[in-house]
Amino acid sequence: MRSDQLPIVGITIGDAAGIGPEISLKAVADTELCSVCRPVLVGDLAYLKKAAHDLGFSLDFVEFLSGSQNQPPEIEVLDLKNLPLTVNIGCDAAQTGKASAECIEAAVDLWKRKEIDAIATAPISKKAISLGGYDFPGHTEFLAELTETSEFAMSFFAEKLRVVLLSTHVSLRHAIELVKTDRLVKLIRFSNEQLTKLLGRDIKIAVAGLNPHASEQGMFGGEETDEIAPAIEQCRNEFAVDVTGPYSPDTIFLRGFSGEFDAVIACYHDQATIAVKSLSFGSSVNVTLGLPLVRTSVDHGTAFDIAGKGVADASSMKAAIKLAADLAKRKMHAPLNS
Amino acid sequence: MRSDQLPIVGITIGDAAGIGPEISLKAVADTELCSVCRPVLVGDLAYLKKAAHDLGFSLDFVEFLSGSQNQPPEIEVLDLKNLPLTVNIGCDAAQTGKASAECIEAAVDLWKRKEIDAIATAPISKKAISLGGYDFPGHTEFLAELTETSEFAMSFFAEKLRVVLLSTHVSLRHAIELVKTDRLVKLIRFSNEQLTKLLGRDIKIAVAGLNPHASEQGMFGGEETDEIAPAIEQCRNEFAVDVTGPYSPDTIFLRGFSGEFDAVIACYHDQATIAVKSLSFGSSVNVTLGLPLVRTSVDHGTAFDIAGKGVADASSMKAAIKLAADLAKRKMHAPLNS
Repeated sequence: MRSDQLPIVGITIGDAAGIGPEISLKAVADTELCSVCRPVLVGDLAYLKKAAHDLGFSLDFVEFLSGSQNQPPEIEVLDLKNLPLTVNIGCDAAQTGKASAECIEAAVDLWKRKEIDAIATAPISKKAISLGGYDFPGHTEFLAELTETSEFAMSFFAEKLRVVLLSTHVSLRHAIELVKTDRLVKLIRFSNEQLTKLLGRDIKIAVAGLNPHASEQGMFGGEETDEIAPAIEQCRNEFAVDVTGPYSPDTIFLRGFSGEFDAVIACYHDQATIAVKSLSFGSSVNVTLGLPLVRTSVDHGTAFDIAGKGVADASSMKAAIKLAADLAKRKMHAPLNS
Repeated sequence: MRSDQLPIVGITIGDAAGIGPEISLKAVADTELCSVCRPVLVGDLAYLKKAAHDLGFSLDFVEFLSGSQNQPPEIEVLDLKNLPLTVNIGCDAAQTGKASAECIEAAVDLWKRKEIDAIATAPISKKAISLGGYDFPGHTEFLAELTETSEFAMSFFAEKLRVVLLSTHVSLRHAIELVKTDRLVKLIRFSNEQLTKLLGRDIKIAVAGLNPHASEQGMFGGEETDEIAPAIEQCRNEFAVDVTGPYSPDTIFLRGFSGEFDAVIACYHDQATIAVKSLSFGSSVNVTLGLPLVRTSVDHGTAFDIAGKGVADASSMKAAIKLAADLAKRKMHAPLNS
């Protein structure tokens, strides 16, 4: 991307049996979005043309060509020619699963060839991916493998609020066991490093407690005193991170949302996602920290139950694409050593 | 209350070392609030006069008299004469703790004598109450004792969303142990009975799961399958409750907030409070279900750190008083057998 040009965002259309193609099309049909980035859909052109027609959109599509200039309002598509014209909507299948994984591979290839500046991903189905012969639990791990990244973390952005998760898809019982000083120290340092780079400035981090009211000095639960406070202490003293806490989990995300902190560390998945989805009313964005490329994603799944009906809400997809463009721009303008 | 009159809401001013008196005064100084109810402050008149002066409010106070009529804009106070003119702001002390407990006793007395229709409570300090010689963990238990109530539950109201809690102030580890079929069946039935009465119509209840994504069919955690689903089944089949779930915890509260359900059962404290406080931006109301009287409360604590500075936000206090008035009115108009 040249500094006088809009960032180019590759949009993988996700699992075609879900709402991915629909929300991708709704997003690129939004002229406001096209004023902040140059979107490139990564998927099957013929399938997208038919889907757009079914949605009543009159969009002009053009094949994405290496080194070409954008000609809005034409919608650029990197055509993978990997889907039939119709698929079984709402069903996990090998063909759609394989196609959704190929979109991710193709997008990473585009990024490696410097043809795009960032990737925004529509939802995939873990089961379909597996039926399609791919063995990874989700986007994040696949992208980490494709870019040879070993340390990464899931985070959510909702306006001024950024939340980084200490654990993701494990039972709540297991998540409690993962609240350990060494894991927290590692995540706090990593979040500080990644977000400082991404935002281009020093940041202030807050850590949520685990228990109600952060246990009120150990009244209900010892993790705040035994695990969380020592991690904060260590990060402040040994690594000079501007981090405080543990704070009461039911107000700290609201405080982060109001701008009092740049990021909040969540002790478990739902602590983060309940707060973020509630505060943003479902238009938050999932950002993978640690990858060499900017990658954002919607905050929801394939929604097989409403796929093909034209009723899917594209708010989170639009927000994901806009944020990808914004972060790619920041990265471009960042000092060379960052 | 006569049906042509405004409901009378007793407002206990809470711990005077905290923000209770300040938010109570800010609430009754709001003329909009005085158009939906007749507020009666329960506390120390001289202390309130001084506090109002310190806040720069020019309010006219008058002593609450049994059977009298309201003369707005005068602010009625049941004068307990139990505080000195100045107290140590931000400190737990026997005198302020005892005074805050006496406000609650006096308010319940007023209700028993049919002088008020509902109670809205400002925050107290558990430690100060204990120093003052009272032995109860919080408002709810004290009110239950004063009204001889054995079955009660904590709930939060935020506009259309009502959340009832399966457990409150216990560690997250302990809360998981409390997710049991028998406890859930009891709470779902109780919530259905209480809220049907309170809202005056049949209601639809949703139950949140415990684990991320409600464990995706047991992928991360067994409580949904082993404990929650059987409770829902039993409540539907044996007791004809309109209840469904378990739903993914990070979207069900948003769905309740949008009006899709009348109430959501939360599996632990923070699941409820993170959602409710985030969705209402800190102006949700705590409602005790099961008491013979309508009792609402703010959704926050004494905030010793900002007490006495005039900066406390009275949104939740105003919302608590308005909701108390609304629920008292509904109760008055409810059929006799409800």
